[in-house]
Amino acid sequence: MNYPLILITNDDGIESPGLRYLIKIMNKIGKVVVIAPDKPQSAQSHAITIDKPIRCDKVIIDDGKQLEFKCSGTPVDCIKLAFSVILDRKPDICISGINHGSNSSTNVIYSGTVSAAMEAYLNNIPSIAFSLLDHSLDADFSQVDNFIIKITRDLLESKIVSCLNVNFPKTIYNNPIKGIKVCHQAAGRWIEEFDERFDPKGDKYFWLTGKFVNNDKSENSDQNLLEENFVTVVPVKYDLTNVEHIELINNLLNE
Amino acid sequence: MNYPLILITNDDGIESPGLRYLIKIMNKIGKVVVIAPDKPQSAQSHAITIDKPIRCDKVIIDDGKQLEFKCSGTPVDCIKLAFSVILDRKPDICISGINHGSNSSTNVIYSGTVSAAMEAYLNNIPSIAFSLLDHSLDADFSQVDNFIIKITRDLLESKIVSCLNVNFPKTIYNNPIKGIKVCHQAAGRWIEEFDERFDPKGDKYFWLTGKFVNNDKSENSDQNLLEENFVTVVPVKYDLTNVEHIELINNLLNE
Repeated sequence: MNYPLILITNDDGIESPGLRYLIKIMNKIGKVVVIAPDKPQSAQSHAITIDKPIRCDKVIIDDGKQLEFKCSGTPVDCIKLAFSVILDRKPDICISGINHGSNSSTNVIYSGTVSAAMEAYLNNIPSIAFSLLDHSLDADFSQVDNFIIKITRDLLESKIVSCLNVNFPKTIYNNPIKGIKVCHQAAGRWIEEFDERFDPKGDKYFWLTGKFVNNDKSENSDQNLLEENFVTVVPVKYDLTNVEHIELINNLLNE
Repeated sequence: MNYPLILITNDDGIESPGLRYLIKIMNKIGKVVVIAPDKPQSAQSHAITIDKPIRCDKVIIDDGKQLEFKCSGTPVDCIKLAFSVILDRKPDICISGINHGSNSSTNVIYSGTVSAAMEAYLNNIPSIAFSLLDHSLDADFSQVDNFIIKITRDLLESKIVSCLNVNFPKTIYNNPIKGIKVCHQAAGRWIEEFDERFDPKGDKYFWLTGKFVNNDKSENSDQNLLEENFVTVVPVKYDLTNVEHIELINNLLNE
């Protein structure tokens, strides 16, 4: 595709290194428009802002050729604003990320990064969420550039309308990535351990913490393949219908 | 099931009439524990609070026999707190709602009400999200009590672990509900129309508005069945894998 229009967002905020890195990569592929949250919006899932106004202002952050807007809302708000207010035509693709930290397994349902890509897909735009399994601000994205370029170009050229949740293992120089696996979301979940504290007035409050538990033994799950150092690609969808339960529940309620 | 433990939450907040009505109904069925947001949290989807502390305090709002807690976080935070901090055993069922307004079709992915039920299901607890297609504060829930009691009792007694997204048509006295349909999520979506305004300083801001468009012609979709005055029940799941795209994308990226 000749010089595609690429819409970029994330959930870590417009100044996060993962987003800045993604912009540099995408400037090589097409015309880039960025609409990203003005502050971190991690774990905001598919939340939208309905009870207060949203600010969205043009900004210049570096000397790249991209056009950029910072938005006071959530990642999904950014996509909605892009389509309705900012862009004068539909983008050819929407890219979200690069997220600092994993969006594999059930992390997908909490993730603002993946939800932003999903929102674009709801509007019939091919989309990709990229995440690296490294939370640190100085995460090294240089080993995954080629994968990002390949997956983006392949999806663009195919004209397939799909939403891809892509996770990269934490790269280590003596442990090269083994390849790309297209697979399913692992059946893992978080087990919470709230940290209970008391404020100076003696009132109780909680910090959400927890650990991730992977109960999925299947070879073709993203969590397990990431542990084997593969890049994982899970095509995702917004139809949550549990088709396998329709008959079961119908027999229960309408017998 | 003898005197089950019923966990209740919602996204409209602990004082919303829909929640208060649900508590009264559930007090007839079992032991009720309520953990609900201290303010409206509509459209918060599966968002969780990771960047600030959460407050959760016992409250007494009416003279019912339920135990109640108000929480400063999202609906999903409420469920996580319930399981980790408040309850001393797993509940037998989790009920979310009654939401003031529809959670049919793709509304499901934005809904805090449905996400709360989904979070319980992630923890292997049967759960139900109830929503009435009437936004008004004085919505009339009296015509749907019997359906709520039937669906809750049936799910409890069956021991089936499923998550049900239940929507009730806006009831009108001369237009009785035709029955219960177990069906799939309609392929509809919101088309945004941001309302652009200027503040007293002359700076621009936006209000999110929009209209819902139902492109789903299939007879067995929730949106269409609600328009025919059926109660709709969509079993939902948190595995977002688009299984039908796995081979397609694998051929694209690994050919």
